[in-house]
Amino acid sequence: MANDKKQVEQITDMEVDFTKWYTDVCKKAELIDYSSVKGLMILRPYGYAIWENIMAELDRRFKDTGHQNVSMPMLIPESLLQKEKDHVEGFAPECAWVTMGGSEELEEKLCIRPTSETLFCDHWHNIVHSYRDLPLLYNQWCSVLRWEKTTRPFLRHREFLWQEGHTLHATAEEAIKETEQQLETYAELCENVLAMPVVRGCKTDKEKFAGAERTYTIECMMHDRKALQSGTSHYFGDGFARAFDITFTDKENKLSHPHQTSWGLSTRIIGGIIMTHGDNSGLVLPPKIAPIQVVVLPIAQHKPGVTEKAEELVSRLKALGLRVSGDFTDNSPGWKFAEYEMKGVPLRVEIGPKDIEAGHCVCVRRDNGEKTVVSLDELEIKVPELLSAVQRGLFDKAKANLDEHTYSATSVEEVKNIVETKGGFVKTMWCGGLDCELAMKERAGATSRCIPFAQEHLGDVCPVCGKPAEKMVIWGVAY
Amino acid sequence: MANDKKQVEQITDMEVDFTKWYTDVCKKAELIDYSSVKGLMILRPYGYAIWENIMAELDRRFKDTGHQNVSMPMLIPESLLQKEKDHVEGFAPECAWVTMGGSEELEEKLCIRPTSETLFCDHWHNIVHSYRDLPLLYNQWCSVLRWEKTTRPFLRHREFLWQEGHTLHATAEEAIKETEQQLETYAELCENVLAMPVVRGCKTDKEKFAGAERTYTIECMMHDRKALQSGTSHYFGDGFARAFDITFTDKENKLSHPHQTSWGLSTRIIGGIIMTHGDNSGLVLPPKIAPIQVVVLPIAQHKPGVTEKAEELVSRLKALGLRVSGDFTDNSPGWKFAEYEMKGVPLRVEIGPKDIEAGHCVCVRRDNGEKTVVSLDELEIKVPELLSAVQRGLFDKAKANLDEHTYSATSVEEVKNIVETKGGFVKTMWCGGLDCELAMKERAGATSRCIPFAQEHLGDVCPVCGKPAEKMVIWGVAY
Repeated sequence: MANDKKQVEQITDMEVDFTKWYTDVCKKAELIDYSSVKGLMILRPYGYAIWENIMAELDRRFKDTGHQNVSMPMLIPESLLQKEKDHVEGFAPECAWVTMGGSEELEEKLCIRPTSETLFCDHWHNIVHSYRDLPLLYNQWCSVLRWEKTTRPFLRHREFLWQEGHTLHATAEEAIKETEQQLETYAELCENVLAMPVVRGCKTDKEKFAGAERTYTIECMMHDRKALQSGTSHYFGDGFARAFDITFTDKENKLSHPHQTSWGLSTRIIGGIIMTHGDNSGLVLPPKIAPIQVVVLPIAQHKPGVTEKAEELVSRLKALGLRVSGDFTDNSPGWKFAEYEMKGVPLRVEIGPKDIEAGHCVCVRRDNGEKTVVSLDELEIKVPELLSAVQRGLFDKAKANLDEHTYSATSVEEVKNIVETKGGFVKTMWCGGLDCELAMKERAGATSRCIPFAQEHLGDVCPVCGKPAEKMVIWGVAY
Repeated sequence: MANDKKQVEQITDMEVDFTKWYTDVCKKAELIDYSSVKGLMILRPYGYAIWENIMAELDRRFKDTGHQNVSMPMLIPESLLQKEKDHVEGFAPECAWVTMGGSEELEEKLCIRPTSETLFCDHWHNIVHSYRDLPLLYNQWCSVLRWEKTTRPFLRHREFLWQEGHTLHATAEEAIKETEQQLETYAELCENVLAMPVVRGCKTDKEKFAGAERTYTIECMMHDRKALQSGTSHYFGDGFARAFDITFTDKENKLSHPHQTSWGLSTRIIGGIIMTHGDNSGLVLPPKIAPIQVVVLPIAQHKPGVTEKAEELVSRLKALGLRVSGDFTDNSPGWKFAEYEMKGVPLRVEIGPKDIEAGHCVCVRRDNGEKTVVSLDELEIKVPELLSAVQRGLFDKAKANLDEHTYSATSVEEVKNIVETKGGFVKTMWCGGLDCELAMKERAGATSRCIPFAQEHLGDVCPVCGKPAEKMVIWGVAY
């Protein structure tokens, strides 16, 4: 941003090549850079600042509901990972293994955590004894590593930043309640902070987390109508507790296994923000998590009094607690407009000699380009109003996209046709069989996104096998 | 804390076995637990909460001075680590190496970052072109890994949490100023927030960071009079920039190498807090970073009105913005006193039926046990005053320890005698020679802690070789 020689170059048209548009935005908005190890990304200051704002929002919500942060080791001995059978089957193929410490070969190889259930269980085995020790409501902020074959910025890193919550409860009911509560926390964050409408639901057995009894998910629709799984929470029953020999004496002095949950949201959500709100001028950020909410740009700043007045506006807006920046470099206004559009700054405030004379400034919304002339007397009232309008506008636009591109179908052919010609989410009934789920993928090119909490009755039979079907599933093409 | 069956057991007397006392406190105050991999610690909620408070204090200071947070990969290819000769020599022996991704052997082995200079340089090589791109003032919060042979909670982990700042500047002067500024930030944090007086100085060539031209340090004296290196900042000159081919065109359009710094402070400082302020009842925390600043304990809580009044005090103190907790479990007051003393809570507020009748409560300082009867009308004034008094009291006590156990000497024998019989810091002149530094260690059992910024003239010759000496060094036994 300090380099006024830099040109804001054209990015690929999103309607021509959405994938290339996406990568262009990640790079040109200075969110990321590639490192010399494939799939390990550098989060640059502007990209990391978005994550910091998301972290602050989530961390507050976690603490308000009684969760505590901890820090677990980054390495898991192979024998520990192997204790829960389904879990190791799911994760072992994508673990990175440490085999040497200094110049010595290790006796047992250690994997860099792909997720930390096993570490939490190992610790809980030591510290849990009585029902009085429960519940344990833990969370950690860290990075994890999964050795993926193909990688894309934010969406599929080998290393990614996330939070992983892990909780332990005396009863199944309590654990299930926690799993649902944490999913709702993610849903509320997405809708109210990130302006991303979600579909809440349950994963099918095929799609659930390795080792989980039940996986809840929120699914978002991107601008290209593909699905992004944006946050998940898992109920484990007492499977891990049995595998790790975690027991407690309950109120009746009987020895029991506690019930467990985990839940995670990662930097992948930043990819979701980009693909939900972005446009051909670049990133578009919801005001609530934008590192810069308002940029003040002086017009004809060499004219007497312009810089001073622009600086005054910056101070006045900062005094409201807003994240405000002024750009007083000698780049042209046109260059600056393009730069802050690329960076997705929600509101631009322009002030030049004529504006000063008229006692107003010009506010331009990033989401729809709408210009509002604001009297300088009303700055403190109008700017927050405009930011709220941008936040609401972004949600409404994304919600319209979701609603317009969610379809119902009663046959595989219909699903296939919608997926191929329109894209989006397709609702159908489903018998619950794995074979039918696999057949839908094979024949219609769509995977099950979730069994939505909000069920509808679209018919009586499964569109694949024709047998009785009681559940409604949402199908789509996913990132 | 919820487990009222737990007994607060006796910890080892610190004057009998300081090492065992230290480990007891780490465990009994529930700061840490051991994991199944040696040297990789679990920071439990109470331990991590201290780190969160330190992070918040430091992060604010970094941002106020224009620094931005980023996130770099956790893995470094061997070839990248090898680019700067001194650096790789220093770190390669203690790297943990990833050699397998999934089931495949990697073409090049990757080390888990022991520190990230090479990663920042690799990135800067890509993004730095002009003087307009400088300075870059970056920081990251992460964990790093060093494959140490012997490990101790907080003081020497294989994996530890820290922040590492990395900055790049157009001139040497600017970079040196940054190095000094960041050391002062650490010093100010230690003294004003952690109540730990420091000695500011420069490391000798032998003790400086691998690859640095100059290393600054703050050294603290622990209760047992040993030294703890508590934060360091490094000036690299343009050595890394040359090794990584980072260049920029300066204002005169000439191609130059930028100058670099790095600086770090880790969870090791929590070990410092424990060993500076702790006593035979357990941890003692400075109010400014205590997760619980005040605990309110009802006395005879079954009596009518006691619980309600105690809850009222909790609310009133929380309304001041203090971190306050009330313990309404059915544990005995004696058990609770011991528990919150172990946890180092700076101030205990007791309230029972007689207190309520008299319209007061009893405040007990953790640092010196002093009891103050406080009128309930004055709660909002007196409690913050008492917390300030604890903060100041802790600093003064630590400063007295430092001052009383800092000696001057003019011969190796004298140094040896002080180190063996009294412990503490010993100031002597020094010729600047490596041989004399090594001889001091060999013959007196002390290593150079630093060449203090506050120099004194204690004589004209080096106590080891008798040659002219212009610098004063501080020697000590270090953790």
